[in-house]
Amino acid sequence: MSSVVPHLFLNGRIVPASEAAISPFDIGLLRGYAVFDLLRTVNGRPFLLAEHLRRLRNSADALGLKVPYSDSEIASAIDELLARNGHTEATVRLVLTGGESPDGLSFSADTPTFYILTHEMRLLPASVYESGGKLLTKRHRREVPEAKTTNYLTMLRYHDQIVDAGALDLLYHDGSHVAEAASASFYVVKDGAIFAPGDGVLWGTVGSLVLQLAAENGREVVLGEVALEDAFGADEAFLTSTTRGVVPIVRLDDSKIGDGAVGPVTRELMEAYERVLRDTL
Amino acid sequence: MSSVVPHLFLNGRIVPASEAAISPFDIGLLRGYAVFDLLRTVNGRPFLLAEHLRRLRNSADALGLKVPYSDSEIASAIDELLARNGHTEATVRLVLTGGESPDGLSFSADTPTFYILTHEMRLLPASVYESGGKLLTKRHRREVPEAKTTNYLTMLRYHDQIVDAGALDLLYHDGSHVAEAASASFYVVKDGAIFAPGDGVLWGTVGSLVLQLAAENGREVVLGEVALEDAFGADEAFLTSTTRGVVPIVRLDDSKIGDGAVGPVTRELMEAYERVLRDTL
Repeated sequence: MSSVVPHLFLNGRIVPASEAAISPFDIGLLRGYAVFDLLRTVNGRPFLLAEHLRRLRNSADALGLKVPYSDSEIASAIDELLARNGHTEATVRLVLTGGESPDGLSFSADTPTFYILTHEMRLLPASVYESGGKLLTKRHRREVPEAKTTNYLTMLRYHDQIVDAGALDLLYHDGSHVAEAASASFYVVKDGAIFAPGDGVLWGTVGSLVLQLAAENGREVVLGEVALEDAFGADEAFLTSTTRGVVPIVRLDDSKIGDGAVGPVTRELMEAYERVLRDTL
Repeated sequence: MSSVVPHLFLNGRIVPASEAAISPFDIGLLRGYAVFDLLRTVNGRPFLLAEHLRRLRNSADALGLKVPYSDSEIASAIDELLARNGHTEATVRLVLTGGESPDGLSFSADTPTFYILTHEMRLLPASVYESGGKLLTKRHRREVPEAKTTNYLTMLRYHDQIVDAGALDLLYHDGSHVAEAASASFYVVKDGAIFAPGDGVLWGTVGSLVLQLAAENGREVVLGEVALEDAFGADEAFLTSTTRGVVPIVRLDDSKIGDGAVGPVTRELMEAYERVLRDTL
């Protein structure tokens, strides 16, 4: 086997990861002023690339940042990284910060830091898709919900508690309505229809595709406020994420959702999404 | 004049800033998982160093991080940086992150990134201390208020709006009670007594000293909830911060506080604090 020296794309150049240096004065470090996006490969090719790049630019806009490359320049950089880094399937992380700040406060959107990393893709155990997973509810709202910022303070602080509870993630709510999971979109099913928060959440790339598949299957999809009690009282629930796809959620905290088993609508959407993945390339 | 090559302290070594490299995989960048503290020099010597180091360790605890050096090791590193970097007066920034994360999610508190930067100290214009400043109120609560995390998303997003309004900072509140400014502590004065939020805010190093000076002057100091309407209806208000000291606040948004001039209690505390600075070293 040949050994692979991992490379990344940093400010216009492909460099060995070991030689890639971010300044300690970067405002992404000093003030957490940064956005990112994460996409996956399917059969080794970037999946939903255009959607992820559109979302990255939306996130940048929300913080007054600018992505310094065109979509095709980014696509080429990703192609080169994937060819060099030799993953089976990869996640591709695009990171954009406000760049260096000599005084730790000011920065210019015209001199950003932009880099692309790849990671070997890690899958959830198959049992989660068969039996369903659990979320811990947590009163919290992300600071700029429409942007995928690098701020994951709450998720990381509760990481051990999530693991100890055998949960997959946190489900954020404001005391009366649900928003999104810390690292995924969240949907509930009632009487065969699918309900999702209409705003105050990050636009989900996989979530959006899955809702489209649901609509094509004749499912009613309702975007609007989703009461916390309606989440607890749902027939079914599921989350969607780039790395995990469609994941059935059968428990919130210590409460079962429905009868605690994976329901037929969730199963239908999991299969529809798997079919899209199989038919890609 | 000899030219100074700025140095910083990074993971145990004093290095030229231009050679200091943070990994693109640092969780402080990828997930904003980091805390910091900022102290100032007085006559070239670190001021309130023990208090700032205690606060840094508290911030680290809140995120499950560990400062990897003793207070005396940090004090020595600061001394060496100040000697090399040749500031008139400096601010000294201590930054602690969870270190490198190969998968962009997990990290070990035992392999943190820790660095120390110095900046030339910048003062507010004298006119602000003579005539008072303005704050813009903003409904917001920091995610981990007891910790000085690197998350300044809201402050930086509103930076242009703050500047355009001729304001100094944002005053965070929850709709009914005030908390703190984005980068300072906030106090109100009513009938000669000083009122400050008792919790849900960062412990202020200068603020704590100023409250002690006020108590020594025979002032009543009340720590508890401070209603937003009581801030608007106060006789006087002021903020405290490491870099700015005691700053009179005479406007919230478009409303005058009191008669819109710097009041006697604020002036008394500004003078008491200046006396401490003059008597230091």
